[in-house]
Amino acid sequence: MRLDAVGQRSETVRRANLSAIVRELHARGPLSRSELVAATGLTRSAIRGLIGEFVNAGLATEERAELRGTPGRPSPVVRLNPTGAVVMAVEIAVDSIAVAIVGLGGQVLELVRVDRPPGHTSVDEVVADLAELAATVRNRAWSSSNLIGIGVAVVGMVRRTDGFVSMAPNLGWTEVPLGSRLARALDTDGPIAVANEADLGALAELRRGAARGHDNVVFISGEVGVGGGIIVDGRPLTGVAGYGGEVGHLPVNLNGTPCRCGSSGCWETEIGEQALLRLAGHPPDGGRSEVEAVLREARAGSLPALGALDSVGRWLGVGLAGLVNVLNPQLILLGGMFGRIHPYVTAAVRAELDLRALPAASQLVRIVPAMLGVDASLIGAAELAFEPLLVDPAMWLRRRTVDALASA
Amino acid sequence: MRLDAVGQRSETVRRANLSAIVRELHARGPLSRSELVAATGLTRSAIRGLIGEFVNAGLATEERAELRGTPGRPSPVVRLNPTGAVVMAVEIAVDSIAVAIVGLGGQVLELVRVDRPPGHTSVDEVVADLAELAATVRNRAWSSSNLIGIGVAVVGMVRRTDGFVSMAPNLGWTEVPLGSRLARALDTDGPIAVANEADLGALAELRRGAARGHDNVVFISGEVGVGGGIIVDGRPLTGVAGYGGEVGHLPVNLNGTPCRCGSSGCWETEIGEQALLRLAGHPPDGGRSEVEAVLREARAGSLPALGALDSVGRWLGVGLAGLVNVLNPQLILLGGMFGRIHPYVTAAVRAELDLRALPAASQLVRIVPAMLGVDASLIGAAELAFEPLLVDPAMWLRRRTVDALASA
Repeated sequence: MRLDAVGQRSETVRRANLSAIVRELHARGPLSRSELVAATGLTRSAIRGLIGEFVNAGLATEERAELRGTPGRPSPVVRLNPTGAVVMAVEIAVDSIAVAIVGLGGQVLELVRVDRPPGHTSVDEVVADLAELAATVRNRAWSSSNLIGIGVAVVGMVRRTDGFVSMAPNLGWTEVPLGSRLARALDTDGPIAVANEADLGALAELRRGAARGHDNVVFISGEVGVGGGIIVDGRPLTGVAGYGGEVGHLPVNLNGTPCRCGSSGCWETEIGEQALLRLAGHPPDGGRSEVEAVLREARAGSLPALGALDSVGRWLGVGLAGLVNVLNPQLILLGGMFGRIHPYVTAAVRAELDLRALPAASQLVRIVPAMLGVDASLIGAAELAFEPLLVDPAMWLRRRTVDALASA
Repeated sequence: MRLDAVGQRSETVRRANLSAIVRELHARGPLSRSELVAATGLTRSAIRGLIGEFVNAGLATEERAELRGTPGRPSPVVRLNPTGAVVMAVEIAVDSIAVAIVGLGGQVLELVRVDRPPGHTSVDEVVADLAELAATVRNRAWSSSNLIGIGVAVVGMVRRTDGFVSMAPNLGWTEVPLGSRLARALDTDGPIAVANEADLGALAELRRGAARGHDNVVFISGEVGVGGGIIVDGRPLTGVAGYGGEVGHLPVNLNGTPCRCGSSGCWETEIGEQALLRLAGHPPDGGRSEVEAVLREARAGSLPALGALDSVGRWLGVGLAGLVNVLNPQLILLGGMFGRIHPYVTAAVRAELDLRALPAASQLVRIVPAMLGVDASLIGAAELAFEPLLVDPAMWLRRRTVDALASA
């Protein structure tokens, strides 16, 4: 291994530089060589060499830029090849399952979502249904030799190291080795990364949605269950094992109603879909269509509907005040049901924040609806699956070269 | 600027390598060259050159190692020179102020603490008292030309960028430009960094106390007010402006008592010193000596004292359950009063965690008393002041060379 004058191994530096380039292109889209120089701090000649490696491996293309009226030669534009490396994204939500194929750079190439009746379903059934969905998207335009990994979003608490689902109360699952079950069912020996759906929703909003450019974010999402994804200094907060972000089980009301987790008065018992529907006089298990009915009533001025939304907004503000005091975020993103009810709860949330969050922290935080909608977690699962390539593209470039030699 | 073969600037690499070396020595104490090779991944010859720079600037010494009975030449031991670079650490606590001089490597060279009656004191008075204390420690053995910065711990919410104290309810302060006030009073144009005392307590426990080697930690400390410091993936959580970690104002009891922050039912109204004393039938404003009296009564089997400790323990567990669900830490450190009452509250805390924290996260967390005692925040303030040198020692080495030329 060659060593440079200051004792750092050149190979380490090369890997870090390849990573910096592919991250920029993946996050920001096509960039000129000049923009890459500005973004990475590398020299123009180094950029040229490193880009060449991506182009040779079929992961990027370079094209002559338009003349822009600026002096000097136009800088060629580098663009990732979306089918050069793809990932499979899988989601297990409360009321649907979904599979997507996403290309390097973030383009969604295929996406199939199938609704399921909410409630408990066996692991066997869900895994079999996912295998079937995966087979349909796999047999399309892209070549499976370019599949570099699988990312899975699941509505439960996940140990990141091995994709073990410790509990998923909304599915009725406990202690499910989901990572290994899916590896067998999808017949892959490539990497499978599993994470909580709210954590992945936050990651997606950070990379491609409303939280872009923000480093300290609280994402709260939910329907029946309430989940959270937290970004600290630009990085997802996972905690020691990956269980972080379970904001739905903040204790906010010790005299409150029993929670599916075994405790009582958890935040989600006061702000979840069932609380809203119960307060509005609708069947608590009515699901999203009943929530839409409550919103229609509120638009028409119905007092019970407006009162129910106000109560949920107040409790939403109470818990958010606690999170603002602990985390000092600049942005709170409301996803899922909270995104849909956002216009009706903003005033109540702000009132509780003004009362209960410390002013210095409260004044800095904006509250906005999430942008990516129902597919946020699926997009986050794809980002999770791309992470190994973004961290160490050199490994993938080498593999690509070996494959090319083998098939020659 | 010289460029190496892969396009990274050599100067950047040199700075990163100098930083890696000084961080290891500062955190771990004297190390042999071989240990530095193992810890940093740098080559032996690079280590030799970089160490030479520290030695020439008077920041480190190298001494021949003892023969250890292992084959080969003994590896010289590198040791930071504690008086080669020193910082001043300042603390403004509720019932005392303190100033210390701490050397590179963490050795406390001077420390003066003066008790003050708790309660509101004017900023002018505190700043004047601190200037006086600082003058006494400054006129001792170490040379003031080696003072590289000042770190300040204050019991309030601090904007990190400029040391502006947004509020400090226990001192009766709001909107105090503490950083600039202290710069004038201490007559320095060097860097002054100000942060919350619980955040700095957590930093100290992480670097030199009970949290060493842990990456995900919740530190909770308090007497009258309750503060927290949170470590996420090995780094202090500051939030967007430095206001993070205000765990004392988690809303836990909406029917609770008014809090000094203007809200009611904040966690600190249920677990702070005043709650304990009130429940035990002692004067709520009695301070630490009354807490000691409650602990004596508890040791003697007094039911009111044990009942008060149990209640505080229960509420402590309720809030910690929320933090465990959100942050998934591996370690909870109890500091201040919570460290002292630790033996009496452990069972109640565990019972609430078992009930209210999600089992997967709860099973992973240990609860231990903090190690550094009353000086934790002061030690953390010193670490804060050393940070610029640890991040970029090259800047300091250059300054040292310029000084040497100027005085030659």
